[in-house]
Amino acid sequence: MSASVGEEQLTAVFHHIDQHEQTYLDRLIEYLRQPSISAHGQGIAEVGEVLLAWLQKLGFTAELKPTAGWPMVLGRRIEDPNLPTVMLYGHYDVQPPDPLELWDSPPFEPTIRNGRLYARGVGDNKGQHTAHLFAMESLLAAHGKLPCNVIFLLEGEEEIGSPHIAQFIADHQDELNADLVIISDGPVDHSGQSTIEFGVRGIVSFELWARGANQDLHSGNWGGVVPNPLWTLIHLLATMKNDRGEITIDGLYEHVEPPSPLEREALDKLPVNVAEVLAELDLARLDMPPERPFFDRLSIWPTFTINGLHGGYNGPGSKTVLPCQAVAKCDIRLVANQTVSDIMDKVAAHVQHHAPEVEFVRLGGMDPSKTPIDSPFTVPIRQAIVAAQGKEPLLMPAMGGSLPNYVFTKTLGLHTFVIPYANADESNHAPNENMEVWRIKQGIKTTASLLLHLAQLS
Amino acid sequence: MSASVGEEQLTAVFHHIDQHEQTYLDRLIEYLRQPSISAHGQGIAEVGEVLLAWLQKLGFTAELKPTAGWPMVLGRRIEDPNLPTVMLYGHYDVQPPDPLELWDSPPFEPTIRNGRLYARGVGDNKGQHTAHLFAMESLLAAHGKLPCNVIFLLEGEEEIGSPHIAQFIADHQDELNADLVIISDGPVDHSGQSTIEFGVRGIVSFELWARGANQDLHSGNWGGVVPNPLWTLIHLLATMKNDRGEITIDGLYEHVEPPSPLEREALDKLPVNVAEVLAELDLARLDMPPERPFFDRLSIWPTFTINGLHGGYNGPGSKTVLPCQAVAKCDIRLVANQTVSDIMDKVAAHVQHHAPEVEFVRLGGMDPSKTPIDSPFTVPIRQAIVAAQGKEPLLMPAMGGSLPNYVFTKTLGLHTFVIPYANADESNHAPNENMEVWRIKQGIKTTASLLLHLAQLS
Repeated sequence: MSASVGEEQLTAVFHHIDQHEQTYLDRLIEYLRQPSISAHGQGIAEVGEVLLAWLQKLGFTAELKPTAGWPMVLGRRIEDPNLPTVMLYGHYDVQPPDPLELWDSPPFEPTIRNGRLYARGVGDNKGQHTAHLFAMESLLAAHGKLPCNVIFLLEGEEEIGSPHIAQFIADHQDELNADLVIISDGPVDHSGQSTIEFGVRGIVSFELWARGANQDLHSGNWGGVVPNPLWTLIHLLATMKNDRGEITIDGLYEHVEPPSPLEREALDKLPVNVAEVLAELDLARLDMPPERPFFDRLSIWPTFTINGLHGGYNGPGSKTVLPCQAVAKCDIRLVANQTVSDIMDKVAAHVQHHAPEVEFVRLGGMDPSKTPIDSPFTVPIRQAIVAAQGKEPLLMPAMGGSLPNYVFTKTLGLHTFVIPYANADESNHAPNENMEVWRIKQGIKTTASLLLHLAQLS
Repeated sequence: MSASVGEEQLTAVFHHIDQHEQTYLDRLIEYLRQPSISAHGQGIAEVGEVLLAWLQKLGFTAELKPTAGWPMVLGRRIEDPNLPTVMLYGHYDVQPPDPLELWDSPPFEPTIRNGRLYARGVGDNKGQHTAHLFAMESLLAAHGKLPCNVIFLLEGEEEIGSPHIAQFIADHQDELNADLVIISDGPVDHSGQSTIEFGVRGIVSFELWARGANQDLHSGNWGGVVPNPLWTLIHLLATMKNDRGEITIDGLYEHVEPPSPLEREALDKLPVNVAEVLAELDLARLDMPPERPFFDRLSIWPTFTINGLHGGYNGPGSKTVLPCQAVAKCDIRLVANQTVSDIMDKVAAHVQHHAPEVEFVRLGGMDPSKTPIDSPFTVPIRQAIVAAQGKEPLLMPAMGGSLPNYVFTKTLGLHTFVIPYANADESNHAPNENMEVWRIKQGIKTTASLLLHLAQLS
């Protein structure tokens, strides 16, 4: 427990949470029974109304904010303009539950087995943003007020790529005047340890289309004479990344910076058991040259993945065909200081230079986001986690995946922290999504502790 | 007409063919009504019996020869042991007719439109091997005997890759004691001119399998750390053929020989209208460096075609997946002096050297075949074609595609000539397969002329 937060404040709220653990679990289960699938809209409106009522009951000024897609749920509770304001961001939509036949219990009939709660959306993200709501409920019950001001923002389109959040944030800056952003989503570290994630990588997605003749041809009559779109893609892609895993797209590493000393220190502390990873994935080796160890590659280097490459025959045995087209679907993950527009332009220029006949199709992107490890909020956040969990969290300069956190760090200029509450094997986006029951209560306590500790900065 | 063949002999048989044009056309139509689809066996037995009766009516000793698959039809008519013996090879099986909805008239209801006879198998190969049969019928009618001995061999599995012909030929050499082999299959030159094809390229088919983790992974969490089978294949394939179209598999060109002066002369005479090819295929360019012109690439150089490459996501838009496996299906066409076993071994060694974790799967192959252009049979064959068609044929050192002709040239040691009778746009293996009606009669006359001219060699 931190010296600056009164022990009795923490004790009181933790006691309330312990007393209400079963109630909160039951209410989470009730909430999980309601599908809210952004991909086809099922239940979105109903869950929006539930959240609105919930926030209003907690004394928030709350509304459903329309967007060009599903609405945002926005609630504000301003205790005192002199207190810090924390924005809590999450999402109320869930992934579709397919394939249903792989679930051991139905996705919208929450079931506890072996200490885990199974349901679609339990980890991603309902069990995490309800930790925020339940923590505030316990804080209000224990102390009559929240320790700081809270802006509560839930998106309804996170699982379909947050297509409207950038516009929404840009349009509503006056209602989003916080001091920092806290997001509880995703899993803790593979080792089970809690993590503070200071950044997320960005992403650009694109397709490369190579086209040959206007129809598939006979390889004996035309092979070696008529251009083969598969060879075209292979020779182009071979100029874009070498067999040591280095991206060789002209200028791609231009804005990549080495880790700061604090980031270096944090990266070196991140645990990875390579032997265990190899065994779990049935791999003989990782792509991991000594100068770019595991977490360096995922945090501070861009990576270039071919998500799919398809052209020509795909049946059994052989077919002597010369295919007429081929496509490679790709993503590049961006690190701090890289931008979607600059990287898209660089890839386009590279393709134009090396294979001008290949069509480059921009699919979309998301800028990266980074908050400095030495942010003034880092110390109280670490203290809050230790107070609730009894152990120092790991510090991760950036997670490998992509979230639209740049709208908070770049558009709003706010330090943004991802503090996940779900277990590493939560199976989000997969059948049998689950959350360890003890982590649900730990998330509620951690949130209460965070709000109490961040209040000390005023 | 050749000086060595009596004009009256040719005139008599051509007259008989002219008189019976309609009869022969009707009988071909009747024959085409009977499906004989080797892929599923439909009609194979019935058509075998029809052919047996036909040959017996022509005075042949004929039988259905069992193989491990569909039987061979083998007929022999020995006029005089001192006469040359010509083996006529063809196939009585046809391709499946799917997709049926793309046929303008049903595939097994032969229909004449605009001077073409439409039916499955008309060009490939029923309209061509019946030309052999009708020619012999007219020769017998006009002269009471054939001008030379004939061994007539029809296969029932050509359309499924001739899996048993090599064994059959090896096992029945004593019944196949001919002086040369003539095959009428495939189309004449694109320009419409008749062709003598002295060789066929061989082929090896193989797959390259790259495997990564035991499941698809998230590209943000694992991309750049876990090996991507698509990148593995790209880097391997890029070592196997360069962007100038040269195969760079170690040792692959070892046994490739430059064309002989006669082959050079023949190749230079083969007409190709590049502008027309580009327009027909909607292409901006061909892969045709100046030192390897069009027909050189198809006749005297091996070519390496990726028939299909597949791995990872193939739906709309993007999916940030790191695929767990990928496969490339490939063929290499072989030229004279290359062998299946040597090239398979060279590819395997190359893969083992450059990407030992990639699985190399041998799918099968067929050796190339070549008959020298200055074969003693070339002159009478050319004279026979001129006598029947009024024009010198083109000489093609080797066709780009692959047929099992090596069983004749290598196992039996016989010079083998492919003399196609079908039009270039016969659409074999496709809907609306057709043969120009005038070419059917021309094929019959050409066969009669060939047998008369080859008889002069005795």
